[in-house]
Amino acid sequence: MKRFLLFFAVQCCMLVALAQQNVGFRATDLVSPQVNADHTVTFRLMAPKAESVKVVGDWAGESTIAMTKSPDGVWEATTMPLVSEMYTYRFNIDGVMTLDPVNPFTRRDVGNWFSIFYVKGGVADYYQVRDVPHGNVTTTWYHSDAAGADRRLTIYTPAAYNTSKKRRFPVFYLLHGSGGDETAWLDLGHTARILDNLIAEGKAEPMIVVIPNGNLTKDAAPGETSEGLDFRPCMSNQMPGYKDGRYETNFDEIIRFTEQNYRCLADKKHRAVAGLSMGGFHTFFIALNHPDTFDYIGLFSAGMDFSKLDMNLPAYTDIDGKLQRLQRSGYKYFWQACGDEDFLWEANQQVYAQMQRNGLDVDFYKSSRGHLWSNWRQYLVLFSQKLFK
Amino acid sequence: MKRFLLFFAVQCCMLVALAQQNVGFRATDLVSPQVNADHTVTFRLMAPKAESVKVVGDWAGESTIAMTKSPDGVWEATTMPLVSEMYTYRFNIDGVMTLDPVNPFTRRDVGNWFSIFYVKGGVADYYQVRDVPHGNVTTTWYHSDAAGADRRLTIYTPAAYNTSKKRRFPVFYLLHGSGGDETAWLDLGHTARILDNLIAEGKAEPMIVVIPNGNLTKDAAPGETSEGLDFRPCMSNQMPGYKDGRYETNFDEIIRFTEQNYRCLADKKHRAVAGLSMGGFHTFFIALNHPDTFDYIGLFSAGMDFSKLDMNLPAYTDIDGKLQRLQRSGYKYFWQACGDEDFLWEANQQVYAQMQRNGLDVDFYKSSRGHLWSNWRQYLVLFSQKLFK
Repeated sequence: MKRFLLFFAVQCCMLVALAQQNVGFRATDLVSPQVNADHTVTFRLMAPKAESVKVVGDWAGESTIAMTKSPDGVWEATTMPLVSEMYTYRFNIDGVMTLDPVNPFTRRDVGNWFSIFYVKGGVADYYQVRDVPHGNVTTTWYHSDAAGADRRLTIYTPAAYNTSKKRRFPVFYLLHGSGGDETAWLDLGHTARILDNLIAEGKAEPMIVVIPNGNLTKDAAPGETSEGLDFRPCMSNQMPGYKDGRYETNFDEIIRFTEQNYRCLADKKHRAVAGLSMGGFHTFFIALNHPDTFDYIGLFSAGMDFSKLDMNLPAYTDIDGKLQRLQRSGYKYFWQACGDEDFLWEANQQVYAQMQRNGLDVDFYKSSRGHLWSNWRQYLVLFSQKLFK
Repeated sequence: MKRFLLFFAVQCCMLVALAQQNVGFRATDLVSPQVNADHTVTFRLMAPKAESVKVVGDWAGESTIAMTKSPDGVWEATTMPLVSEMYTYRFNIDGVMTLDPVNPFTRRDVGNWFSIFYVKGGVADYYQVRDVPHGNVTTTWYHSDAAGADRRLTIYTPAAYNTSKKRRFPVFYLLHGSGGDETAWLDLGHTARILDNLIAEGKAEPMIVVIPNGNLTKDAAPGETSEGLDFRPCMSNQMPGYKDGRYETNFDEIIRFTEQNYRCLADKKHRAVAGLSMGGFHTFFIALNHPDTFDYIGLFSAGMDFSKLDMNLPAYTDIDGKLQRLQRSGYKYFWQACGDEDFLWEANQQVYAQMQRNGLDVDFYKSSRGHLWSNWRQYLVLFSQKLFK
């Protein structure tokens, strides 16, 4: 019966109980989640005393399915067939949000932890670890004069970086959204796996990917700074210095650090920048304030709402003039992607029109759905294939 | 009232609800955990419909405290004063084990996720990110002929590795226990923070730390291999090839990879090896089968139970002869640490006696408590200060 794991798994857990005091690894015979052949997914939870259990997932924005209880106290629910993607979910047990206790695979998004699963047979196949040459992922720290601090960033170097010790590589700067940090594009974005797989298939050029932290007054991700656990995750608009423009105008700090410490092709032709949501906003103003720097620019569901922006700040003054300057200095490819259900759709349309008015050639990509990681992963798969060719 | 966060935190979460569809970041005014001035810790959970809630933590092996419910549906419990350490805990809500939903900070141990907190003012101060120069942490892959596969490992390089581009460094090979992998010594062990802090204080030499995966038939941690989510965490004795000795006899593969790809001082004088539990067992037989390789050897609560060991395997034959060979070839420092409540205490005593009989000079360190990460982190703080001096 597919619902039950092989006996050794139970054995395994029992042995653990003897072997260690603090692992807390429990015996279980439940299978959850179970991705079925028809791409429906079945969730199960042992909670005999619960009155109400729902599964809450991200397969359609936020989807909630009531689970039904069997006489043996196991709650169960099955989704509709799902398209290939990585999905996150939690259980709502009588109002308490929890991980799936029998699923060891999780991701953090801002301040919450979610259980995850993959529906394969499509784009999610790029999110898998395959038997292909793997690049390195390094967390390192650069000194920011703008922040007056050492700040953490994550760098992906392709497999060829290890095998060709003299070769230099192009660099793709990839920026997270509000509430994100230098871990988001790796953990939720699957950047290293996507690049490993696209490069192995010959669909993307071997490139370095730099993933900085876009919250200039925070040195690193929550829990990874000298504030310890006192700095709790929140959206970036709750952090000091939000949209003061200093991250965008000082972005050359990060480029300099990268080109001084890694074997980079250090010219405009071999630099790309893109970002999701707030990171798309950052990308736009980084490009406008560094017009001779990037040949490839990508906006992913960009946070293009300028309504509360202080247009007197150096980063944000004279947008039209800067757009014209960017158009004159030239670039190879400018991509703007947004979902037709995204709450930022209108704002992206307006900025697209403004870029048109200023003579910029922008390739606008309309996807389905909204402001979701599924779109941002898919945009990365598409955009990274356009780079450095 | 300390129980309530500042208003902006609630604001923050509300803004999030507007800003993104799938973050699921909820408003809350609960503070949990709350580390009090007297080093007691108070936990709180909003669960109005629950009949019974307990907090289960690792501050004394496995400790369970029943929580009491207030009229507003908030369950609360407070520990005894705790010594400085990092602690893990979960809530048992009517039999369902969950994370603390308002604590974003977690760690995985084998197949379970735990909420965490620190009690500072002692050894846990070494587990904090401080404003000191930080090393890099890199996940990379080496080719193992023994496994016939590319396998993942984690490498810490000290801050000086970035600033002195020609300098070479000694290497410390640090091995995980059963159920662990190449992430355990970083996430649970806090290796990078401990080394950053000890090096900044001048108490440890700048060194490279290599953290391999000791399960030779698995390429990487659960979820990081081409098995995807089908390879679920379990204890190593449930994996094929457990204690077949090939990891220990082929460990020179990992040394060769490290010395070919990093700026290492590539001699016995500048190599150390240590491991916890199963990793201590590995360390013992790696040292015995590579007698001219390491000047520093450390056993942390080592899994020295030879009862089920196949003594005919090349790695495990002629232990006395190999010990005498190790004694003749010499080493600088051999450290064996075990807690007096550890279920492996007797086994460690027996191996200590066997090493004595064969003329080895071993410094035995008896700590309090049992087979716990708190001991292993503290052993790392102590042992790393003995290296390369």
